[in-house]
Amino acid sequence: MAGGVAGPAALRPLLETVLTALAAGAERRGGPLAAGDPKALAAEVGHAVHAPQASLATLTELLAHGAADPADPACAAHLHCPPLAVAVAADLAAGALNSSLDSWDQAPAATVLETELLAELAALVGYQPQQAAGVLTSGGTESNLLGLLLARDRALRTPHSRPELDGVDLARRPRIYASRAAHFSVQRAAALLGLGERAVVPVAVDADQRLDPAALAAALAAGERDGETPVAVVATAGTTDTGAVDPLRRCAQLAAAHGSWLHVDAAYGGGALLSDRLAPLLDGLALADSVALDWHKFGWQPVAAGVFLVREAESYASLARRAAYLNPLDDEQAGYPSLLGRSLRTTRRADAFKLLVTLRTLGRAGLGALVDRCRELALAAAELVRARPELELHREPLLTTVLFRARPPAGAPAGRLDADRAGPDRCETDGLVSDRFNAELRRRLLAEGRAVLGRTELPAPVPGVTPGSVRLKLTLLNPHTTEADLARLLDTVVATARELGRA
Amino acid sequence: MAGGVAGPAALRPLLETVLTALAAGAERRGGPLAAGDPKALAAEVGHAVHAPQASLATLTELLAHGAADPADPACAAHLHCPPLAVAVAADLAAGALNSSLDSWDQAPAATVLETELLAELAALVGYQPQQAAGVLTSGGTESNLLGLLLARDRALRTPHSRPELDGVDLARRPRIYASRAAHFSVQRAAALLGLGERAVVPVAVDADQRLDPAALAAALAAGERDGETPVAVVATAGTTDTGAVDPLRRCAQLAAAHGSWLHVDAAYGGGALLSDRLAPLLDGLALADSVALDWHKFGWQPVAAGVFLVREAESYASLARRAAYLNPLDDEQAGYPSLLGRSLRTTRRADAFKLLVTLRTLGRAGLGALVDRCRELALAAAELVRARPELELHREPLLTTVLFRARPPAGAPAGRLDADRAGPDRCETDGLVSDRFNAELRRRLLAEGRAVLGRTELPAPVPGVTPGSVRLKLTLLNPHTTEADLARLLDTVVATARELGRA
Repeated sequence: MAGGVAGPAALRPLLETVLTALAAGAERRGGPLAAGDPKALAAEVGHAVHAPQASLATLTELLAHGAADPADPACAAHLHCPPLAVAVAADLAAGALNSSLDSWDQAPAATVLETELLAELAALVGYQPQQAAGVLTSGGTESNLLGLLLARDRALRTPHSRPELDGVDLARRPRIYASRAAHFSVQRAAALLGLGERAVVPVAVDADQRLDPAALAAALAAGERDGETPVAVVATAGTTDTGAVDPLRRCAQLAAAHGSWLHVDAAYGGGALLSDRLAPLLDGLALADSVALDWHKFGWQPVAAGVFLVREAESYASLARRAAYLNPLDDEQAGYPSLLGRSLRTTRRADAFKLLVTLRTLGRAGLGALVDRCRELALAAAELVRARPELELHREPLLTTVLFRARPPAGAPAGRLDADRAGPDRCETDGLVSDRFNAELRRRLLAEGRAVLGRTELPAPVPGVTPGSVRLKLTLLNPHTTEADLARLLDTVVATARELGRA
Repeated sequence: MAGGVAGPAALRPLLETVLTALAAGAERRGGPLAAGDPKALAAEVGHAVHAPQASLATLTELLAHGAADPADPACAAHLHCPPLAVAVAADLAAGALNSSLDSWDQAPAATVLETELLAELAALVGYQPQQAAGVLTSGGTESNLLGLLLARDRALRTPHSRPELDGVDLARRPRIYASRAAHFSVQRAAALLGLGERAVVPVAVDADQRLDPAALAAALAAGERDGETPVAVVATAGTTDTGAVDPLRRCAQLAAAHGSWLHVDAAYGGGALLSDRLAPLLDGLALADSVALDWHKFGWQPVAAGVFLVREAESYASLARRAAYLNPLDDEQAGYPSLLGRSLRTTRRADAFKLLVTLRTLGRAGLGALVDRCRELALAAAELVRARPELELHREPLLTTVLFRARPPAGAPAGRLDADRAGPDRCETDGLVSDRFNAELRRRLLAEGRAVLGRTELPAPVPGVTPGSVRLKLTLLNPHTTEADLARLLDTVVATARELGRA
C-alpha cells in the first residue's frame, strides 16, 4: 500500500521502475510521437498488453513510447501542456494519500488546502474571496456545465422554490447566448441539462473570432421581445483555436441589463491572469457570475486541474446536498466543514494540491514569465510562417496559438476531403484542394513521427484569400521551446508539403 | 518539465522529497488522523500555506500529517480505499506524460490501452466485448449520470430524431425507479438532466436494504397505468451503507417488460466480480443496459478510477460529437480513432493505465484474494461487535461494511441531535439519546485522533430494537488489517463510549 508510515518505502523502488521506463520509452520514441499508422500502433500495444511478461516496467515503457509528448517542441497541437515536474511530484502525494474531498473525514488537510487555493484564485480573478466560492473540476467542460447548471436553476427559480426538485420548464423557452467560436461544451451542457442544443443562440463574431457585442445586444433584445428566458450569456476568454477574448465588460453589461447570468469560459485565457503584461486582456472578468479556469491548459499542471468559481457563494444553492453518511447537519454544526455541495462529483481527488505547490514554488511571477515566454514564441512562429512563401498565416496570434496553412503546389490532387462531403463537382475548387492537402499534410507529419500539429476549420470563409477552411495550428505551451525549434518545425512542415506535392 | 527524455531525471529528486515528506507526515500523525478539532487544523494549515518557506516538502508533510489515511486500520469510515503502491506508481506515469484521451494525437498509446482495458472489464461484467463500449469516469456519480443520460435520450427518442438537439419533454412524465437505499447521485442526476428529483420513484427495500421486486413491479405497473414514461430502473449492486445487492435478474426482467433501461450501480459491489466466491452475488449483471464500476472503492486504486460500460455501443448515439479541432471525419476515415463521444468530459487523464497495470501485476486472482480478505474482516468485525455488550450489531455484513452502534449508558444526556430537529418533547426518547450519543462518540474519536468511523442513518426504524436511526459504520477495505487491529479498534470505541458516558 502507498499510504501509512511504510508506504513511501514501498513506493520508492516502483517509482524508480517508472522513471527508468519513462526515459527508455522517450528514448525509443525519439521525437514528438512514434512513427507508424494508428492500426500498427494498436496492434503493437494490443500485443504488449496481452504478453505474459506485461508489468509496470513494460507497460510504462509502452505508454511513453506511444505517447504524443507535449514536452517535445514538435508536439504543439492542442491545449495539452507539458506538466511541470514539481506539479507531477505533488500529484504523487495526492495519489498516495488518496484524500477525497467529499467529506472532511476523508481529507481533513486537503479540505482546508482546497479552500485556501480557491480564495487565492478568486482574488486573482478579481472576486471578493470571502464572498466567492468554487471547486476543482475535471476541466473546462465540467466547469462550463456547472456554470450553466447554476444559471439554469436560477432562471427557473421562483422565490422559495427548490429548482432541483422540478424538471426544466421549457415553456419559459430558456436560451443561452454564446459566440459561434465558443467551445462545443456549451452545446453539450445545454443537451445534458435538458434544454437541448437548440437552446444555444449562436452570436456572430468579428474577424478575430471575438463575440460581436452589437450582435449579442440584438439577440438578447429579440429574445426579450419573443418572451424567451435569457438563462445565460457565455463569453469566452481565449477561444481554443485563435485565443480570442470576447469583450467581457460589454457582455457583463448586456447580461445584467437582461437579468441573465454571465459565465466566462477562461479555460485557456485564464493563464493570462498570471502575467502582468497579458492580464489586462481579461478586463471585466470580475463582473462574471461564474468563471471556468483550467490549469492543465495554460498552467503546466497534469490533468485534471480545472477550476470553477462563482462570485457569490449563495449561487450554489441548488447543488446543496445533505447525505447522512457524508455531512450530517450536527457534524456541520460541530464545526466539520463539507465541500459536498460544491461539486457535481462525490469522490474527488485532491487536485488542488499540485496547483498550490506550483504557486508556492514558482510564484505568480514565475508562472507569469512562462506565460509571457509562450506568447513570445507564438509571435515568433507567426513571423517564421510569414517568412516562408510555402505557408500562409491566418492572422496575428492573440494568445499562444498560430493558425496557418500550407499552399498546395500546382497540380496537387483534387478530391473530396472526406467521404461525406459533396460530390465531384465541388472537388475541384481551390478550397477543397487546399483543405485536403493540409489535412493530408498533418496526417503525414503524424504518421512519420515528425510533428503533432493541430488542425481546425475556420467558421466562415475569409474574405480576400483563397477559399478553404482547414487550417493547421500551433498551440505553443512549452516555454522551453526555442525559436530555432520553431524554425526547424516549420521547415519540416514545408519539406513534408513538398514531398506530398510530388507524390 | 516532467516529460521528454530529460523529464525522469528532473522528477527523481522531487519524488524523493515527496517520499521523505510523506513518511515524516505519517510519523508525526502517528495514527489514522491527527488529533484536534477542525478549526485548529484549519488554522495550522492556513498558517503553513502562507508561510514564506512553503514548498513541496513542507506542504507534502502537511498534507500527510493532516490526512485521514485509509492505510491505517483505524481509518475505516468510507468507500475510501488505501491505494496499492503499484497503482500509485503507474499513475505517476500518466501524470508525467499528461496524455489526454479526447483525441488520438494527445494519447496514441493511451487510447489503445483504455480500449483494451474496457474490453476486459466488459468481459468481466459478462458483456460481449465486441458489442460493448464504455469509458473511464471520475466515479460512480458520473457513471450513474451517464447511464441516466443515455436512458433519458433513448426514452425521448423518436426514430431519426436527435435527442441532444431538443430539451426534455416533461409532458411524457419521465420516471426513474430506484430503491430507497440507492445512492443519492440518482436524484442528483435526475436534477442535472432536467427531469427534477421528483422524477425518481423510491422503491421499498427489505430489512437488508435490498430492493423489493414486488414493490418495483407495482410501481412500474402504476406508472404504466398513469401514462408515465419509464426512463430507467436503477438497481444497486452494493449499497454504500450495507453492501446490499438488489435482485438484478428480476430487475432486468421488470425493466424489459416495461421497455425501460436498466442501469446497475455496481460502484461498490463491482469489486465482488474479482472474487470467485463473491461474483455469484452479482448474477444478472450482464442483463443491464449500463453498469457503473469504481476501482477507487473496492479495487485499491487512487482516485479517479470510475468505469462506465454499456452493453451495446450504439447506446452512445446521443453523445456522439464531432469537433473540427479534435476528430474531423476524414481523420477518422483515415484510421485515427476518437474516444471523444464516449465521455462527458473533453480533456481526460489516462486513468485506465493504473488499473491495467494493477490487473497485470496482481491478476484477477490476486485482487480477488484481497476482496475475500476484506469480506473475512467484515465477518470477523461483526463477531467482535457481538462479543462486546456495550455495542449492538445492526445485521450480519453483506459485503465489507459493518453497521453497529454503542449503547448509551444509563443517564447519558438527552438533547437534540442537531439544531434543526424537533423540539424538546422528542429529545427524551431513547432513540434520540442513542443517536446523539453515537454521533458524539464518532466526533470524539475523530477529535482525539483515535479512529475514523463512518456514521449513517437507517432509512426506517428497525422493528424489535431500541429506536434511533444513527449507526456507526466500518468500511473494511484494507486487506492488511488484522483481526487484532479490529479488536483494538472496537476496544477503543468501547473505552471512548465509557468516557463519554461519564462526561
